Amino acid sequence: MQAIWLEDRRISFRDDLNPPQPPPGEALVRVRLAGICATDLELVRGYYPFTGILGHEFVGEVVSAPQRPDLKGLRVVGEINAACGECPACQAGRPTHCERRTVLGILDRNGAFAEYLTLPVENLHPVPVSVPDEAAVFTEPLAAALEIQEQVHIRNTDRTLLIGAGRLGQLIAQTLALTGCDLQVVVRHAYQRELLDALGIVTLSEEQVQQGRWDVVVDATGSPEGFIQARKAVRPRGTLVMKSTYKGDMQVNFSSIVVDEVTLVGSRCGPFPPALRLLANKKVDPTALIHTRFPLSQASAAFEKAAQAGVLKVLLTPPG
Amino acid sequence: MQAIWLEDRRISFRDDLNPPQPPPGEALVRVRLAGICATDLELVRGYYPFTGILGHEFVGEVVSAPQRPDLKGLRVVGEINAACGECPACQAGRPTHCERRTVLGILDRNGAFAEYLTLPVENLHPVPVSVPDEAAVFTEPLAAALEIQEQVHIRNTDRTLLIGAGRLGQLIAQTLALTGCDLQVVVRHAYQRELLDALGIVTLSEEQVQQGRWDVVVDATGSPEGFIQARKAVRPRGTLVMKSTYKGDMQVNFSSIVVDEVTLVGSRCGPFPPALRLLANKKVDPTALIHTRFPLSQASAAFEKAAQAGVLKVLLTPPG
Repeated sequence: MQAIWLEDRRISFRDDLNPPQPPPGEALVRVRLAGICATDLELVRGYYPFTGILGHEFVGEVVSAPQRPDLKGLRVVGEINAACGECPACQAGRPTHCERRTVLGILDRNGAFAEYLTLPVENLHPVPVSVPDEAAVFTEPLAAALEIQEQVHIRNTDRTLLIGAGRLGQLIAQTLALTGCDLQVVVRHAYQRELLDALGIVTLSEEQVQQGRWDVVVDATGSPEGFIQARKAVRPRGTLVMKSTYKGDMQVNFSSIVVDEVTLVGSRCGPFPPALRLLANKKVDPTALIHTRFPLSQASAAFEKAAQAGVLKVLLTPPG
Repeated sequence: MQAIWLEDRRISFRDDLNPPQPPPGEALVRVRLAGICATDLELVRGYYPFTGILGHEFVGEVVSAPQRPDLKGLRVVGEINAACGECPACQAGRPTHCERRTVLGILDRNGAFAEYLTLPVENLHPVPVSVPDEAAVFTEPLAAALEIQEQVHIRNTDRTLLIGAGRLGQLIAQTLALTGCDLQVVVRHAYQRELLDALGIVTLSEEQVQQGRWDVVVDATGSPEGFIQARKAVRPRGTLVMKSTYKGDMQVNFSSIVVDEVTLVGSRCGPFPPALRLLANKKVDPTALIHTRFPLSQASAAFEKAAQAGVLKVLLTPPG
């Protein structure tokens, strides 16, 4: 089958791979559409060691699922953390933090930039017919955005600042706006602003950010500078959500965090069911983020495009 | 009047000071008993710039309070942050984070190691007759311990680890135990363990701390090593409370905090009313922490004693 393979920080298009054989408890899924995310670009840059098929954002259809025959033929999206079900984290109901997890296209598990993938049947969620593939492919990052509200109570009176309006930031802006909170989004580029303007979401430039003003600040920049700006913007006893990956260590003044009694919250993968509900009832529309599509066979061109400034979502289409 | 004066990192006993004149809205309080805290020792070490009378833990009696004559003659404790009442933080009900605050014996306000002090009348809380001076003098640090439960919901099923069993740690251990949670306390010294043993609180040595095991971890060590240990001990999606001052910046791997979705909470001053209720109903007994007492005139000896390993609370007694 065709796939995009990562090895030694290089991606390559391959068509010499056999379709995977699902182990017990897993389903074989034919990928219909997949999306390139910032994490994929970081994997290529070598921020995490991974060899195999990249990709974790997808919508597909179930080819076979011996343990769950009812799933066969359904259009599905899939949670990316495959859990053991037995470790303390799994037993405590936190499978995304399974101590022995594999992660689709990220950790010890081949990913979605391929004709076929396998995932445990419990990871799969049928997609409502009202959600087209072009929206469903955003379920995983939309769930990650919704993890913020899963972890932090955003009050509808909260002054909330989102820093970063890229791929994930745009989805976070849409989900935070649903709370009715007093939301402002720091944008760096005109195209980011235009998308938010079209939704009636208030934007700011970096220079307009006042110190100590916001009840809740979300850093979705992926950069230490974003964290520093977020730390300045949050008020005493406010909450700073780290919806971002930071490379290496950061130097932070923790004394001031204690004195100001700030709460810092690390945030990663989120819940799929609310993401699918919000796509089905059209409260979130991610399709404006789509920049272009490439076939898997144009892997290099697709990744180059996704890494360009001003490009949000690049989709990949397997053959068939 | 007599007082202990800090200037250029040196403390001195003075008896050449005039009693303070309370400005409008403030009360004149005669100090009955005061306590030396780690922050006082840090002020002497120069961690924060302060010149004036040290001390912020006290119990006293109101000599005059023109705006609140009902307070006159009452035995009181006092909240240490004097707020402006007008800045955004004050208006939002967070006076301990007032942008123009002065702090008793810490920031732009003479403190409690003196015969007299002044504080705004709204900072004062009458002490129930059932609470002796020796317990009431702990109200301020006990309130700081209780700030943890004010900020974080400690479930009675939570596995909770407290690292550090010094002056503040002992009070935190007592208040956390009241939640009924599964509490374990990391101790370094035999005298710390003995106090907790006497209360039936489970202790651990540093070597017994398992990684990623605890739902809630409180760092009350005051050291970067304590933070590192706390970070290792907290489970994914757990909460790490920073009940500690850290000097300078710390190098921290924030990527792992995001991946593990840990919540970090800075914690400082807390609420006085519940502290007084818990002293009045004897659910917390801080008096076992008292090591010895000195008159103000033996300032140097008192501070030397307070800085010794194995010494918890040193009290200061003004004349009269």
